[in-house]
Amino acid sequence: MTTAPWRDPALPAAARVADLLARMTLEEKTAQLYGVWVGADTDGDGVAPLQREMTSDYDWDELITLGLGQLTRSFGTAPVDPELGAQALARAQRRIAAAGRFGIPAVAHEECLAGFTAWGATAYPVPLAWGASFDPPLVEEMARHIGADLRAAGVHQGLAPVLDVVRDPRWGRVEETIGEDPYLVGTIGAAYVRGLESAGVVATLKHFAGYASSVGARNLAPVRAGVREFADVVLPPFEMALREGGARSVMAAYNETDGVPASADPALLTQLLRDDWEFTGTVVADYFGIGFLETLHRVAGSPAEAAHAALAAGIDVELPTLKCYGKPLVEAVRAGDVPESLIERAARRVLLQKCELGLLDEDWAPEPTGRIDLDSAANRALARQLAEKSVVLLDNPDGLLPLAPDARIAVVGPRAADALAMLGCYSFPSHVGVHHPEVSMGIDIPTVLESLRAELPDAKVTFAEGCDVSGPDTTGFEEAVARASEADVCVAVLGDRAGLFGRGTSGEGCDVADLQLPGVQADLLDALVSTGVPVVLVLLTGRPYALGRWHGRLGAAVQAFFPGEEGGPAVAGVLSGRVNPSGRLPVSVPHVPGGQPWTYLQPPLGLADEVSSLDPTPLYAFGHGRSYTTFAWEPAESRELEIDTDGSYDLTVTVRNTGDRPGAEVVQLYLHDPVASVTRPDVRLIAYQRLELGPGEASRVTFHFHADLSAFTDRSGRRVVEPGALELRLAASSAEVRHTARLMLRGPERVLGADRRLLCEVSTGE
Amino acid sequence: MTTAPWRDPALPAAARVADLLARMTLEEKTAQLYGVWVGADTDGDGVAPLQREMTSDYDWDELITLGLGQLTRSFGTAPVDPELGAQALARAQRRIAAAGRFGIPAVAHEECLAGFTAWGATAYPVPLAWGASFDPPLVEEMARHIGADLRAAGVHQGLAPVLDVVRDPRWGRVEETIGEDPYLVGTIGAAYVRGLESAGVVATLKHFAGYASSVGARNLAPVRAGVREFADVVLPPFEMALREGGARSVMAAYNETDGVPASADPALLTQLLRDDWEFTGTVVADYFGIGFLETLHRVAGSPAEAAHAALAAGIDVELPTLKCYGKPLVEAVRAGDVPESLIERAARRVLLQKCELGLLDEDWAPEPTGRIDLDSAANRALARQLAEKSVVLLDNPDGLLPLAPDARIAVVGPRAADALAMLGCYSFPSHVGVHHPEVSMGIDIPTVLESLRAELPDAKVTFAEGCDVSGPDTTGFEEAVARASEADVCVAVLGDRAGLFGRGTSGEGCDVADLQLPGVQADLLDALVSTGVPVVLVLLTGRPYALGRWHGRLGAAVQAFFPGEEGGPAVAGVLSGRVNPSGRLPVSVPHVPGGQPWTYLQPPLGLADEVSSLDPTPLYAFGHGRSYTTFAWEPAESRELEIDTDGSYDLTVTVRNTGDRPGAEVVQLYLHDPVASVTRPDVRLIAYQRLELGPGEASRVTFHFHADLSAFTDRSGRRVVEPGALELRLAASSAEVRHTARLMLRGPERVLGADRRLLCEVSTGE
Repeated sequence: MTTAPWRDPALPAAARVADLLARMTLEEKTAQLYGVWVGADTDGDGVAPLQREMTSDYDWDELITLGLGQLTRSFGTAPVDPELGAQALARAQRRIAAAGRFGIPAVAHEECLAGFTAWGATAYPVPLAWGASFDPPLVEEMARHIGADLRAAGVHQGLAPVLDVVRDPRWGRVEETIGEDPYLVGTIGAAYVRGLESAGVVATLKHFAGYASSVGARNLAPVRAGVREFADVVLPPFEMALREGGARSVMAAYNETDGVPASADPALLTQLLRDDWEFTGTVVADYFGIGFLETLHRVAGSPAEAAHAALAAGIDVELPTLKCYGKPLVEAVRAGDVPESLIERAARRVLLQKCELGLLDEDWAPEPTGRIDLDSAANRALARQLAEKSVVLLDNPDGLLPLAPDARIAVVGPRAADALAMLGCYSFPSHVGVHHPEVSMGIDIPTVLESLRAELPDAKVTFAEGCDVSGPDTTGFEEAVARASEADVCVAVLGDRAGLFGRGTSGEGCDVADLQLPGVQADLLDALVSTGVPVVLVLLTGRPYALGRWHGRLGAAVQAFFPGEEGGPAVAGVLSGRVNPSGRLPVSVPHVPGGQPWTYLQPPLGLADEVSSLDPTPLYAFGHGRSYTTFAWEPAESRELEIDTDGSYDLTVTVRNTGDRPGAEVVQLYLHDPVASVTRPDVRLIAYQRLELGPGEASRVTFHFHADLSAFTDRSGRRVVEPGALELRLAASSAEVRHTARLMLRGPERVLGADRRLLCEVSTGE
Repeated sequence: MTTAPWRDPALPAAARVADLLARMTLEEKTAQLYGVWVGADTDGDGVAPLQREMTSDYDWDELITLGLGQLTRSFGTAPVDPELGAQALARAQRRIAAAGRFGIPAVAHEECLAGFTAWGATAYPVPLAWGASFDPPLVEEMARHIGADLRAAGVHQGLAPVLDVVRDPRWGRVEETIGEDPYLVGTIGAAYVRGLESAGVVATLKHFAGYASSVGARNLAPVRAGVREFADVVLPPFEMALREGGARSVMAAYNETDGVPASADPALLTQLLRDDWEFTGTVVADYFGIGFLETLHRVAGSPAEAAHAALAAGIDVELPTLKCYGKPLVEAVRAGDVPESLIERAARRVLLQKCELGLLDEDWAPEPTGRIDLDSAANRALARQLAEKSVVLLDNPDGLLPLAPDARIAVVGPRAADALAMLGCYSFPSHVGVHHPEVSMGIDIPTVLESLRAELPDAKVTFAEGCDVSGPDTTGFEEAVARASEADVCVAVLGDRAGLFGRGTSGEGCDVADLQLPGVQADLLDALVSTGVPVVLVLLTGRPYALGRWHGRLGAAVQAFFPGEEGGPAVAGVLSGRVNPSGRLPVSVPHVPGGQPWTYLQPPLGLADEVSSLDPTPLYAFGHGRSYTTFAWEPAESRELEIDTDGSYDLTVTVRNTGDRPGAEVVQLYLHDPVASVTRPDVRLIAYQRLELGPGEASRVTFHFHADLSAFTDRSGRRVVEPGALELRLAASSAEVRHTARLMLRGPERVLGADRRLLCEVSTGE
């Protein structure tokens, strides 16, 4: 018997898939377009929105005779030993392959945002912390390790990264984002993608697009945004992660924008993504998102209509259900309501990806080939490194930090002694583990309290919780105040509990009405500050909180977001001085809890004073962060220069560590466009470079600015470079400009295509 | 000497203006395009944003030799006796006419939103109260009186009404709006316009368009909105007020939407307004708004560029300055940078309007012809009637209201004894009077305390202020609690102080971070409720405030917004039972202070539960309001019916007053569209009818629904009627449905033009 052409690895993938499609029935092709979630708990609290009502019943043995597109979260649904889990996944894949006519397994996907969402896997810092590191190479390295662990366990696709740009910090999923600037999100996001893909794992960009902009910051609420905001703020990170990262999958978002659900929007999922950006991978639905077209958007009258709308728009795979793409879709095709060519189109994309992944090859084998260790020493070292680089020293006016090694330290607060305080809601222990209290956490997570005791063995460290994260009880204040009063310094460790759908104070579905610290923590902090003992505020949070209430009254303030399993030692290292803090804020920290939304990307009108009683100026600006050392900036000579509208300009600065300990400076480059045909942000980030410098050491950075980086979307929707004046501002934060270069762009207006430059190249030297 | 054609009243206006333009120099034509503000205080606190920096210097005598387009606020700038003011205005007009070659006076304009903004003029209830009345004929009558008073004083143009639809209740100018529903705003707004125009005064629709949607509710902040939200929510009131009201002027808004400033947007000011809507009147700038194109939007590099952008977009008149349309514009035309045809176009519109107003006629005379009484008994009666109809009884669970005539009543709160508590920020005493404390208020404004004492002469009424409106001082709580504890009932009169630019808690530039009651008033209310004495909350506010904190703990709650000079007796009448409350909420009242923005116009996604920890459901829904009597609704039989996509359907309901006192019910008709090609609000108001019914009396209302009323803007930007199911919901509020009629629209999708039906006709009978 000769091998069928589709099995022949010598043939081009397209030819193999064409052959295969020609052999498949409608039902078999359609079966490639859905996934199922074995073991998803349909009775208890879900980990996806409306999970219970949206899950379908099916007979597994019957189902897999048709083949199966995707398998959902074999590891991320309940605690399983990774070795056993990998074997179980392999068995399931063998069964799927054996049951169908073609022997093709499913694509196995998992969540993996801040690490593989599996029991015993490394919990890395959350994306806000990646943003704070301003260190794409390190994020890439982390993602490479995540990818390797996924691959080792038999997983093909990771549902990460989140490329939503923060538009309202009250949103629960801010912790999953990289920050409020599209350039930062795009560069860090692309690095993550490169890392994951380098391990052979399909990266999935989400949520495409607009999800973070929901009105009032309520999860899934409608988005108000115009086409220019969409084009210039929401979309660029996706474009960067596709072009600079090579992501092979995109997830359609739940939200609607201006009345059009993303999951039923061909302009977004096909015209932009496929035609303009030339994306050839798969588009997958967010969980149950196709069914939501009927139930939450009401742009479809039935599951079949929802399937038609999604498929026509460009969603290839329904996850993690067959509610719409199962029987309803097949029947609609049979009835002539949906053209079979749409099934072909999606199945071709899925099968091409399976072909790339080797899943059509005869020698395909799902069994793990080596020992599986999801929390290796190398992983932990990476997690530590990233955590250390992501801690932001907000303020240290009188040098209270680093702490004296023999200080009497009162550690206070509900986040000081809880390992879960280190994790975001997509880390396994928070995401799934909380439903299985009988099972151990699977990884070692030192708390801030434990870490500080280890870090400063000569210090006298006392502890009082003070209060709960979110409850109203203040009876613990008395003891907390007593501990603080006896100490030289009080370290108040406050923040969020990450969780899903109202079970946390941060995380998916855990949106907040304002940016006051959760529960009675603000009152606890008031009480501690009132003691007169200097207070170091340490925040382990999933979003920025308003700190204006304590402005000028804190000894020091440290923002650590969720720093992951090695976050305790990282924070303790910053407090002790072993680590010189070098994180920079990826989100603005506001003065007051209300008045949201606001981010730093404001056109002049959003910054105007005298016109409103509300002053939105943040307490700590985007890009802000202090160090225990000092840096001198020595810009190279620059005078007003003219370049063409397709020209470039090199801007150089030498940064010297003028203190006596090693430290890192993040040189940021912002663009200010004095006059344009539409309003422009007063400043926006167009490049940055992290510099690690020993005492006295200097480094020279050159930003190779190209005029393309000044482009924006004009009134007619074209992306243009306009002639005229520009300012390039070298800065230590969006509010702390160190040097300005004035450029004049001469020549005609240029209209840019999909090949426009997205990145500012940077070179460094001594 | 023969009369010049332009002076000849027998010729058509167009011919007269053409003749005149042919005689004018460039400078003379341009002079018709600006206004000046004589007496504007450029040193002190302004009444317009950035007034000081945006006002230009000029030599009046030299200026008027060219003629003058507009004269700004002769009455609304400082307190002047109306008779003397009218004489002064007439003298100024004589001087202008005498100085120029053509003897043409200026158009004199004034603010007149809730009454002529002049010393001694009637202060009517604010627009939110008009919205609460659901009574367009009464609003029309009010505007007719306002117009007559303006005309008598020599004013030609009134800068009202405000047709902004509330999109974020934190915005300071919510008090100037009619509410959060475009149909309510459009119908009440059109009635106002009809009234003003019927007196010969040019009504000015503002702010065109989008101003109310500023991000974070900060005055002038950028607007995030897509084209469909703009077309279906923001624009319809303007379309209605032009078509159904006949407004002759439109004011361009300060804001930008999605990067494009309204004042530099030809798509809005010309293509939509002139070409599609066939508007032929004048477009005026908001104060200093053209200069803001340079300074606050930076879409222009100089005043000349700002002038060019605004003129090209379609702004005919700069107010109240010549900063851009003065010398910079003339020089730009001379330099060939701006085509003179743009000057012609704008000057033609201005002169046509002057011709219509009789200002080109030889027998023109500016002197007042009769005695000027700006606060006549007829005015006051109207102000009273509207105030009475606008008071909303939010809740009265145990029938605490009406108060017993001989009750011991503790009146408490910072709004009980202040006449200014009745007024919005565009009423003269709040707007201008506060800068002239030495001058009397000019009108009699009984406070709630005075009115209640007069209303219930046998009651024992005590008073304590408790606290200030916005200050932090709580020392008055003790006395307030003492007064309450001695009483049978406590009437807590809380709310806002209207003012401009941070001088109030509501009003232009007085935006708030959240919807907590201002200052310590929430704490005062807590203290009063804690006494155990039943509390009647009376709110005199410019926006809705969160009341969930006291849900189930108040004896009764009354929302009066700013009810105007007769508001005290109106509120007292409701408390005593002389007036049966009949207002309905034009804005939702939320549970909690945060989580904004939210209005009732939510597609299903904005209402979904289980997906967010935030529940946006309001405490009191749009359209809500209680009565001292009861009503029975008897809908006519209706079964599922089919009509064509251009068909109509009559829906009838009989409403009977089943109680023992006269009262008014507001029958509201909402549309629910189960499935559409874009997401639709779950419900939206498409008709309403206020019914005044004696005890036992019944009235039959028939809504003549036409399919056009189901139209919306589709993905391609067309306004369409789609076939399919619809529900017409007869309701007592947006959340209190009494009867549903299910319709099926059959036939082809229809694309509607500018002649689409905007209104639902309603007939009533016995």
